[in-house]
Amino acid sequence: MSLRLGIHGASGAMGRALIRLAPSFFGEGGAYVAAAVATPARVGTPVSALIPEAPDSLRFSNLESLRECDVIIDFSLPEGARALFAAAPHLGRPIVSGTTGLSSDELERLRSANVPTLFAANFSVGVAVLKKLVTIADGALGDFDVELVETHHSRKVDSPSGTALSILDALRREQERRFGREGSAGPRPQREVGVHAIRGGDVVGEHTLTFFGVGERIELAHRATDRDIFARGALRCASWLKTKPPGDYSVEDALFSS
Amino acid sequence: MSLRLGIHGASGAMGRALIRLAPSFFGEGGAYVAAAVATPARVGTPVSALIPEAPDSLRFSNLESLRECDVIIDFSLPEGARALFAAAPHLGRPIVSGTTGLSSDELERLRSANVPTLFAANFSVGVAVLKKLVTIADGALGDFDVELVETHHSRKVDSPSGTALSILDALRREQERRFGREGSAGPRPQREVGVHAIRGGDVVGEHTLTFFGVGERIELAHRATDRDIFARGALRCASWLKTKPPGDYSVEDALFSS
Amino acid sequence: MSLRLGIHGASGAMGRALIRLAPSFFGEGGAYVAAAVATPARVGTPVSALIPEAPDSLRFSNLESLRECDVIIDFSLPEGARALFAAAPHLGRPIVSGTTGLSSDELERLRSANVPTLFAANFSVGVAVLKKLVTIADGALGDFDVELVETHHSRKVDSPSGTALSILDALRREQERRFGREGSAGPRPQREVGVHAIRGGDVVGEHTLTFFGVGERIELAHRATDRDIFARGALRCASWLKTKPPGDYSVEDALFSS
Amino acid sequence: MSLRLGIHGASGAMGRALIRLAPSFFGEGGAYVAAAVATPARVGTPVSALIPEAPDSLRFSNLESLRECDVIIDFSLPEGARALFAAAPHLGRPIVSGTTGLSSDELERLRSANVPTLFAANFSVGVAVLKKLVTIADGALGDFDVELVETHHSRKVDSPSGTALSILDALRREQERRFGREGSAGPRPQREVGVHAIRGGDVVGEHTLTFFGVGERIELAHRATDRDIFARGALRCASWLKTKPPGDYSVEDALFSS
Repeated sequence: MSLRLGIHGASGAMGRALIRLAPSFFGEGGAYVAAAVATPARVGTPVSALIPEAPDSLRFSNLESLRECDVIIDFSLPEGARALFAAAPHLGRPIVSGTTGLSSDELERLRSANVPTLFAANFSVGVAVLKKLVTIADGALGDFDVELVETHHSRKVDSPSGTALSILDALRREQERRFGREGSAGPRPQREVGVHAIRGGDVVGEHTLTFFGVGERIELAHRATDRDIFARGALRCASWLKTKPPGDYSVEDALFSS
Repeated sequence: MSLRLGIHGASGAMGRALIRLAPSFFGEGGAYVAAAVATPARVGTPVSALIPEAPDSLRFSNLESLRECDVIIDFSLPEGARALFAAAPHLGRPIVSGTTGLSSDELERLRSANVPTLFAANFSVGVAVLKKLVTIADGALGDFDVELVETHHSRKVDSPSGTALSILDALRREQERRFGREGSAGPRPQREVGVHAIRGGDVVGEHTLTFFGVGERIELAHRATDRDIFARGALRCASWLKTKPPGDYSVEDALFSS
Repeated sequence: MSLRLGIHGASGAMGRALIRLAPSFFGEGGAYVAAAVATPARVGTPVSALIPEAPDSLRFSNLESLRECDVIIDFSLPEGARALFAAAPHLGRPIVSGTTGLSSDELERLRSANVPTLFAANFSVGVAVLKKLVTIADGALGDFDVELVETHHSRKVDSPSGTALSILDALRREQERRFGREGSAGPRPQREVGVHAIRGGDVVGEHTLTFFGVGERIELAHRATDRDIFARGALRCASWLKTKPPGDYSVEDALFSS
Repeated sequence: MSLRLGIHGASGAMGRALIRLAPSFFGEGGAYVAAAVATPARVGTPVSALIPEAPDSLRFSNLESLRECDVIIDFSLPEGARALFAAAPHLGRPIVSGTTGLSSDELERLRSANVPTLFAANFSVGVAVLKKLVTIADGALGDFDVELVETHHSRKVDSPSGTALSILDALRREQERRFGREGSAGPRPQREVGVHAIRGGDVVGEHTLTFFGVGERIELAHRATDRDIFARGALRCASWLKTKPPGDYSVEDALFSS
């Protein structure tokens, strides 16, 4: 049976990507967008005017329409997300959310809505797998040195990337992070973790964590070449979340538990 | 308390490396070689004549001397290993073995000796970790394409490496392995796993497994630059095995269970 | 002064990319498409109906319109290219061409047109640089082993890529190419050059040539993430070719001579 | 005819490596150490007492003995090198030198000795080739972003490596070097060159320079796994220098001119 998706924040970049990718992601007939919620001003207008790939019959709708969906995917703005989370108990549907800029209190509210919820800052399947592997490898390689290199396009303004920091958080060891090295700093302390931000061209995003031992090393890398991977990851999480009991879940749960 | 090591096959390449590395591997006073067993002809001669790093007082001894050790490490020849395995119940000590050329029946005999045993073809800590990670990643990335590249020195005669095959065995998926591609072979079947053996220079050994998705990929690599990593891995396993109840264990057990 | 471009084969994939990219490639006002030639049936129709980024006033035109351009870029089909090459002496304009499927006789005709000409099968600036570097490095590293690895998406039907072969042609040494290794093949002959075709995901194209010495190696790699690089390279060649005397040139000439 | 080598600084680490490697480097009978000069106190004592691989008949000798050699290789201390350079006109032999800690005036003295001279801080063939390639690539890729990553063992006290700086010097472009990035630094200026020093394990030395364009990049890397490459490079330079007219040469000259 087809998965009925409700997209909250349908006119944003991620919403558009979700509507564009959903029909093919689960295979022919595997899913369709049953509701597309954007600002009230758009309600009733055809989605295809904004997103050519949308089915002709789909029109922007309001929050209430999400009750007819199997699962809700939310990539909106903080104000919109707050309204969605407040309505969550009434809607009674699983919610996948990647809206940024929310406080931890607001996320807490989402998590207490008595529906299945899954919130993440990064929905890339590959990054979630990488973090899992980093945790496991660090458990066995505690005496190896760890260094992280990340590469992004030249217009990125912050260093290191938020994803780089989340990968470092996946390490079990205590760390003193060091952002670049210059001068005669003496030998490297074993607790130190070097973090190196490379910037150049139009690289979407690459992260490599290396464990250096004596006579050997292990390199764990993720390379993204297309921002659609975030929408694909959210679709995968949505499909998984549909059948779960109320509770709060992570991308990792969706990937590694059955 | 110092770990008392018994080295069986002490005059071979691995035996020498173990005797050379043991004193520093566990830190000052952490371990010492209490018995070095080689061929009968050597019994009573000083080990330092063959291995300059050996303590002056150490002399080659016979099987019986292994009873005075906390754990036995065996890198010998099939004939010698058979004798050791036959004596194992009498010796009553944990045995780590990496002797090659034994039949599965002979290994079975070792495993039924009612002492803790750990046999492996490759004792590199890094390779064991890589295999663990490959299994976990494959569980979450079943729809990604997998390809393996291994690089070794130009004198290596077999392709691909045995380690490469053991890494592929760590994948959960069904596979059709393909060793190189040439000509118009049509699109890649999803079950296919490409295996590529690069040969050049004096490379000790590198293995990279890549999971290719749409818009992203994960690369898991191990690079060895020194053959001593095999001796170090065996020492690590020996220390772990010392306190275990009788049973058969793997390098992975030594790394990932506590 | 603005570069006036004439695009021959304007309705094809490369033609569209050229029309889309030209306005920004040379900076504000640096270039514009003065003529867009496609099939006779399109003459007089607005280009923007097919390529939204085209200026509103631009309409498809015929061969004769190319006389009003500073330089012609041709990515068409063999039949169209033959007509263009026949008209080249009359048009009297420099021609950059990347049309595939032409015989060497037909290319010879282009080269004897008494206008500046530049034909290439691959207009990527990076690949041209890589080939130049490979030639230079091989001159100094004749005793190093050479191996090439290329990676492309899973739908690519031929192995290895044409670009891989052109990189190998840039080596000065005599070669015996070997496409993958399996079994006990004995030590690697020094003249052998391993060629390894990795297939997976949606990788646009990567090529790595490694020189393996004793105790060191050099790796030269090109990674493409966007097919637009071919159009950009053609635009760069066109700008360079505009001021050259009649004669036949290469991408390498455009990059490395002034 | 065999190349007769004179090693000045024969008891140091590089001197030992040269004496160990010379007999096999040029093939059977291709070269031999005709003179080994160390401190006066060693004159007359057998070299094999210090360096087991030395021929039994070779004894440490004094500066004068270098007149009987085809070429002199000097890896000594500043004081010793000064004496050698002062004697150079009298000795009348080509001199390859890698002694560190000399002033530019002292090097100037060497260069004016009216014999063929070749001084370098790093004799790795691979690094010299890499620098040559960097210069050529930068000439064609002036609008690409450049970043350099170097990796060394955890005990290295200075960052970045001297070799990294010499590779950056091989770039033609004007540069503002930036050693690591942290915080919201805004978009990357095009003149900026990021320099990243990774430290871990026992890595001998790796340097990767990347040119990042739009939709493509070029990576140029050198990996060293054995410090013997410096001795091998010096031997290669010595063989080349033997037949050259008086003048000052570089490693690059030895590799790229014939």
